[in-house]
Amino acid sequence: MSKEFLNPPRGIRDIVGLDAELYEYLMNEFRKTARFHGFKPVIPPTIEYSRLFEAKSGEEIKKSMYVFKDKAGRTLALRPEVTASIIRIYLSKYKGEVKPIRLYYIAQCFRYEEPQLGRYREFWQGGLEIIGDRDINSDISVSLTASDYLDRINCKHYYVVGNVAFHRTILSRANISIDKQDYILHLIDKNIIDKAIEFVKENTSEEYVDLFREVISKPIDKLRDLINDYKKILGDSVEILSSEIERTVTFIDVLKQLGYNTVYEPKLVRGLAYYTGLIYEYRAESRVLKTSIGGGGRYDNLTTVYGGSSEYSTGLALGLDRIALVLTSESNTIEKILTKQNREILIISLENTPLDYSYRVLKTLVKNNIESWIYRTNNISKGLSIANRKKIGLVIIIGEREFRENKVTIKNMESGEQSTIDTVNLITMIEKFLTNRFN
Amino acid sequence: MSKEFLNPPRGIRDIVGLDAELYEYLMNEFRKTARFHGFKPVIPPTIEYSRLFEAKSGEEIKKSMYVFKDKAGRTLALRPEVTASIIRIYLSKYKGEVKPIRLYYIAQCFRYEEPQLGRYREFWQGGLEIIGDRDINSDISVSLTASDYLDRINCKHYYVVGNVAFHRTILSRANISIDKQDYILHLIDKNIIDKAIEFVKENTSEEYVDLFREVISKPIDKLRDLINDYKKILGDSVEILSSEIERTVTFIDVLKQLGYNTVYEPKLVRGLAYYTGLIYEYRAESRVLKTSIGGGGRYDNLTTVYGGSSEYSTGLALGLDRIALVLTSESNTIEKILTKQNREILIISLENTPLDYSYRVLKTLVKNNIESWIYRTNNISKGLSIANRKKIGLVIIIGEREFRENKVTIKNMESGEQSTIDTVNLITMIEKFLTNRFN
Repeated sequence: MSKEFLNPPRGIRDIVGLDAELYEYLMNEFRKTARFHGFKPVIPPTIEYSRLFEAKSGEEIKKSMYVFKDKAGRTLALRPEVTASIIRIYLSKYKGEVKPIRLYYIAQCFRYEEPQLGRYREFWQGGLEIIGDRDINSDISVSLTASDYLDRINCKHYYVVGNVAFHRTILSRANISIDKQDYILHLIDKNIIDKAIEFVKENTSEEYVDLFREVISKPIDKLRDLINDYKKILGDSVEILSSEIERTVTFIDVLKQLGYNTVYEPKLVRGLAYYTGLIYEYRAESRVLKTSIGGGGRYDNLTTVYGGSSEYSTGLALGLDRIALVLTSESNTIEKILTKQNREILIISLENTPLDYSYRVLKTLVKNNIESWIYRTNNISKGLSIANRKKIGLVIIIGEREFRENKVTIKNMESGEQSTIDTVNLITMIEKFLTNRFN
Repeated sequence: MSKEFLNPPRGIRDIVGLDAELYEYLMNEFRKTARFHGFKPVIPPTIEYSRLFEAKSGEEIKKSMYVFKDKAGRTLALRPEVTASIIRIYLSKYKGEVKPIRLYYIAQCFRYEEPQLGRYREFWQGGLEIIGDRDINSDISVSLTASDYLDRINCKHYYVVGNVAFHRTILSRANISIDKQDYILHLIDKNIIDKAIEFVKENTSEEYVDLFREVISKPIDKLRDLINDYKKILGDSVEILSSEIERTVTFIDVLKQLGYNTVYEPKLVRGLAYYTGLIYEYRAESRVLKTSIGGGGRYDNLTTVYGGSSEYSTGLALGLDRIALVLTSESNTIEKILTKQNREILIISLENTPLDYSYRVLKTLVKNNIESWIYRTNNISKGLSIANRKKIGLVIIIGEREFRENKVTIKNMESGEQSTIDTVNLITMIEKFLTNRFN
């Protein structure tokens, strides 16, 4: 057959079979968990003006956006991430609501990047956002909701925590512009530390370089002393830094007390340019995937980039593709969560029988939450063979005699046992069969 | 604030608040219903090569596609509909599976059309497809699954049924090419009947024109006689036509017997060029929306357009935006289905109390399926005011004393009653409160 129609474009996937079941499971559990934690749904658009993302999503993302013009000449983009849309939607639709506002979404995003293990050009994110609360509790609330979710789906994970307010406050104090800060953090994100330090050197005096070098290497419990040592050059920035240290410590402590492994990483900055304070990543305890399965942080004042008044906000996104990859690689995890057992019932409706009789039987089954469907044929063996090959355990046969007597024939595909029964007894019989088979 | 960032592009929506709740409800029920009827999930990509849709989706759709080039020069399109992807995926991923194959999807689609009531440039579809079965039962199976869904969400509906095999068989017999057939059906779809007839006239002899004119105006129960009258010029096409009449009658009969209003409409052709036989639309019994809320039909042999071997297939898609519009307009429908009642519990955690204590309380609540979240403050009245304005009925207050004594204070926001209780009694108390409030 013609290959040109066989595959989706490079980096784009068809999610089929057991994978599709897994994705639906991951999305359903995400929604359920988010709701239990008081988050409300929002469905942002897939297409936005590209300027929305260009304003603040960071260099990496800008370069990899799918950008195109519509027929009226608007420059649009497929969303490379969702937070920018959430902030735009907050400003236009939620501004009058009682804060804090707690929102969740599930959305596919698009980035034109080189495909690799767990990275696709169309990928799925589940996200949580809280707008309008400065307290570190909101960061803890989104994080623990995500952890609750990961626990529910049996995805063992730990936290890597950092805080870009440390870097940004010092660089600002050193009179380095925001653009240059973005570039320095970008270098650190790419782990080109020497070049980052070199660039700081070129742009400020030596004492700030030393302080910066220490901040990106010292553990969190040494930072209070460090700030104290540099008190003189820091001036009133000491207060901000002290407060950010306390917030970071509280965050780490609560997570630890609730049983989550948490590591402080002074070089963590994450790719997104809009973060302003605490940030963190989720790592799976997995052999296949060492990279992050999600992350988030503070992005206070992102509202001002879009012309709104200043607002506190914090949020995170989990990468559902990477989580799927982790779960799939742990051989028994998937089978544990997705009952591969086929609970379907097949109704074989013979051609000489009125179809509506069979559909009435089906209706009763479905009403009783029994998965079932009808195959019509004049050839019972063909129907049985389909049931057999689809691993369906129980078949109902409806022919002329069954119709006339208001009965059905029920056949156990494993034992071969078969009997003709009154329709009134059907549900009880099926439930007994399903219980015996799967318990 | 700056308007340029306020809104999504023209025709594209933010789905927020109660609308977002409604959409989630509509999607969840769709998935649930499809599963109960033995359909399995598939997640097709949002982006495809544009040629996939250009091959057979019909003129209207081709003109309104969002087409763009990626950085490697591939010509891509945002999907304007999903069936083409499903067929592609069938050919590349499901070909070896036991037929019939039953698939469902929920997907947003994109068409650059003039926005109007219930029509957006990004819109949501729920679809069902059965591949590999010629029997009319498969058409009935997808239709009744959709009807079961519409019944569950309380969307009253009826069927309009047609069959393009009637038109196509006669036009083929009259030696009119497929391209010209597409054009004629397109005119009929747009209700430009005179022009359609004129065009037929220009391309064939008078007796075929007469027959065609009759076929697009006669009720279904007159078609047998009509075919008989034209037996001589129809030759062996009589057999196909008779068989299609029987299929259409069976389809209509079964739907009627199961209680659905069904109307035969000889001029129904639907916009999509890939239909080959029975087609139908769902109309809501609604005052606001007289147009279709979904539809489907036979598209046998669409596989061959993509280079595969010939295959039977039938399917439908429901327009979730239009269904949402219908449900929203029936004032009490939405409130009936979405419990607007706020079942959330707010935990006010005072700043002098260890946060992890509050999170342990939260954990117990969520484990017991109680929606809850924590607000941390040093100001109880601020917390109570938030609860009040968010219409939260029950608040749990955790301060230093509660923490020391392993207790919580529970406050009924309606009665003002307040008491401090042991955490072991908390779940029972909350459940009692929720039962009293909402039953």
